[in-house]
Amino acid sequence: MADLNISIKDTILQLLEAKHYSSVKDIFATMNPSDIAAIFDEFSEKILPVVFRLLPKELAADAFAEMQPETQENLIRGFSDTELKQVVNELYVDDAVELVEEMPANVVRRILSQTDAEMRRDINLILKYPEDSAGSLMTTEYVSLRPEMTVGEAINHIRTTGVDKETIYTCYVTKNRKLIGLVSVKDLLLAKDNNTKVSEIMEENVISVSTHMDQEEVAKKMSKYNFMAIPVVDSENRMVGIITFDDVLDVMVEETTEDLAILSGQTPNDKPYLKSSPFELFIHRIPWLLILMVSSTFTGMIINHFEAALAANVILTAFIPMLMGTGGNSGSQASVTVIRALSLGEVEFKDLPRIIFKELLTAILCAVALGLACYLKMIVIDKLILNNPELTHEIAATVSIALAATIIIAKILGASLPVFAQKLKLDPAVIASPFLTTCVDAVCLLVYFAVASALLF
Amino acid sequence: MADLNISIKDTILQLLEAKHYSSVKDIFATMNPSDIAAIFDEFSEKILPVVFRLLPKELAADAFAEMQPETQENLIRGFSDTELKQVVNELYVDDAVELVEEMPANVVRRILSQTDAEMRRDINLILKYPEDSAGSLMTTEYVSLRPEMTVGEAINHIRTTGVDKETIYTCYVTKNRKLIGLVSVKDLLLAKDNNTKVSEIMEENVISVSTHMDQEEVAKKMSKYNFMAIPVVDSENRMVGIITFDDVLDVMVEETTEDLAILSGQTPNDKPYLKSSPFELFIHRIPWLLILMVSSTFTGMIINHFEAALAANVILTAFIPMLMGTGGNSGSQASVTVIRALSLGEVEFKDLPRIIFKELLTAILCAVALGLACYLKMIVIDKLILNNPELTHEIAATVSIALAATIIIAKILGASLPVFAQKLKLDPAVIASPFLTTCVDAVCLLVYFAVASALLF
Repeated sequence: MADLNISIKDTILQLLEAKHYSSVKDIFATMNPSDIAAIFDEFSEKILPVVFRLLPKELAADAFAEMQPETQENLIRGFSDTELKQVVNELYVDDAVELVEEMPANVVRRILSQTDAEMRRDINLILKYPEDSAGSLMTTEYVSLRPEMTVGEAINHIRTTGVDKETIYTCYVTKNRKLIGLVSVKDLLLAKDNNTKVSEIMEENVISVSTHMDQEEVAKKMSKYNFMAIPVVDSENRMVGIITFDDVLDVMVEETTEDLAILSGQTPNDKPYLKSSPFELFIHRIPWLLILMVSSTFTGMIINHFEAALAANVILTAFIPMLMGTGGNSGSQASVTVIRALSLGEVEFKDLPRIIFKELLTAILCAVALGLACYLKMIVIDKLILNNPELTHEIAATVSIALAATIIIAKILGASLPVFAQKLKLDPAVIASPFLTTCVDAVCLLVYFAVASALLF
Repeated sequence: MADLNISIKDTILQLLEAKHYSSVKDIFATMNPSDIAAIFDEFSEKILPVVFRLLPKELAADAFAEMQPETQENLIRGFSDTELKQVVNELYVDDAVELVEEMPANVVRRILSQTDAEMRRDINLILKYPEDSAGSLMTTEYVSLRPEMTVGEAINHIRTTGVDKETIYTCYVTKNRKLIGLVSVKDLLLAKDNNTKVSEIMEENVISVSTHMDQEEVAKKMSKYNFMAIPVVDSENRMVGIITFDDVLDVMVEETTEDLAILSGQTPNDKPYLKSSPFELFIHRIPWLLILMVSSTFTGMIINHFEAALAANVILTAFIPMLMGTGGNSGSQASVTVIRALSLGEVEFKDLPRIIFKELLTAILCAVALGLACYLKMIVIDKLILNNPELTHEIAATVSIALAATIIIAKILGASLPVFAQKLKLDPAVIASPFLTTCVDAVCLLVYFAVASALLF
């Protein structure tokens, strides 16, 4: 993919240098807006506006909408007012809103000064809504029909007004601005009789989202119902916009990136990796590292407390990393699985007893298997092969029993913490990870020294 | 959501008991296929077929397609042959294929015996393709147009044949079965003149996927181009099917679940959490726990090697968990970020020098900040507040320097391992995690003892 872009980019650069503008124009005409945008992102600031003028009219705005904010800003700075006006007013409202959100204030002022009154009103309407809400994601361009229209009138209405609408395939039926039904173009086209009223064939049981719903919930709802678009209504069921599936795909990619960041102990970063400066990466990574370093004071205190016992049995120290590592892994296996099940809506608070019972059985299986494997490993590898004289059967038993107990506790904690976090309206991933690690580490050491005291001292 | 379902479910159960069948029918008629399916998943096997007969015809097949495989199997066992025939032949081909893939052999035989010849041929065609390939995801139901049709003829063609097609909004133009263009219903409806030829308004630069492309790649391509459907072609560019956006949404959810499982050290599990037995969870979780337990032999060996030094400075032991924990976290922050950037196509092998340079700078910032914080923490908390007499400035310096060095090494390793893994055509997540943990743990201890030897002994 990237290789392909680069070679086209080089060809275009050579053609531009040789002033073969019409060939460049022809090349662009064969391309898709997304691919054009990817190439523009690689051009230097100087030639951007020149090359942009070679884009076919119908592709220019679509390609512009797909470019990186940096490229968009450079282009706008190079545009004449007329050019800016053309591009901005060709954008879909939701793309225009995204542009306004990304640009610095002085660029935004220039953009809004070149925007048509209607578009400007719509942009401002959407900007009112909190970030990541359905309202901020929606577009105000949709086809709305009246219930008393006939199928024929409805199709004509779409044919005359549809060209500016982001999706024409689901049409919304409104009465006094309230959403009362929907009808798909498929239903209209497949209707037997052109004189049937829209109200007769419309689906009245419309699933909609409210302007303040979180974008992740919107994505979940749309993917559950397989909708191409979902209507957005205000608190009085008045229709204010639609959200289309392509925005939902973007939300899903964004949310996955965010979840992965959180699970690996970082604050989410919405910039692409290569565009993030080391300082930005540092800012996203340092908080959790600091928290965990400080919280490790507990594990240090526990070890200090048993210092005398450790000094007498230094070999016990050698197994601390393995115990804590296995405890941590066992816990995060359970917590990540439960966090995912929570976010997919597969489990909720009332399932807690079932979750704990399931994890307990799983943990016992893991504990028995790993405990036995650990005992065998210590006797065969550490004692017989590596020939460690200090390694007695008692030591091997201590480590294996502590391992088994740690696994069971870690899995129960790992599975239940996210459920409690969600009950308390906290993000399960954010809360569960650092707290879980700290708990499991401390519990693991306490169990280890307790077993050692019982068996060895 | 679930609460809502349950109350409706209870109402329905009460109405069924009171034999108010027509009310139940009325309730179903107001519901969406997904919600109906969710309720059916909670019914007992015995009443399933009875309640299914109350579903309105046009909802029955759609709701059936959305149910859990278990529910589907129970329903099929309760169906008469006629009922089975009705439901199966109403399914979209891709849903029928999924059904056939999920059911046990004897149920599959019964399903295929009740399937129309054409549907059976299509099912078998799709079953030929490897799991997770574009071919296995596609449906063979799409609207195909001939280039010489006029707009009017095309619209008529859709109106007469469209009712069985999964999506009618993108129509594919074929000549001798080869894909030569596409035209959207929007283009057809908005065409100025009904006599325009399809070949004049069709988009000739069609982006398609091959039958063998991996489903994750298909999802990436569709979300990049914001397509509602993408055509699937064979090696000779003959059109064989389409993949629609709703299947892509499902693929994205599935792939995210899979990635999260792998990153938390589990083999992917395609069953929902509550449907997985403890033994199944055990099987998905034990391999990585075992591998890491055995690989921790190295860390144990390193600690044993420095046993004498540790016995003399037992306080050094207290900081091993913190050092290994911070090293692990630093490494996984970098590796998860790079794994995500790789899977989004933001970086590739040629970017390795930039990645390493960026991570080096980030790591130095983190190392300086955490090293200083660690030193301060040890002096203020461990020495002054907790009043630990063994804690000298030399010990604090040893730990802080080892911490800083570990962070730098962990971040470089974490960022580069996934890139190498992908270059070797291995899954970056699978390879990077266990290997990274083992490397970082060992490196961390070696660095710690090296710094201690230099400063303390």
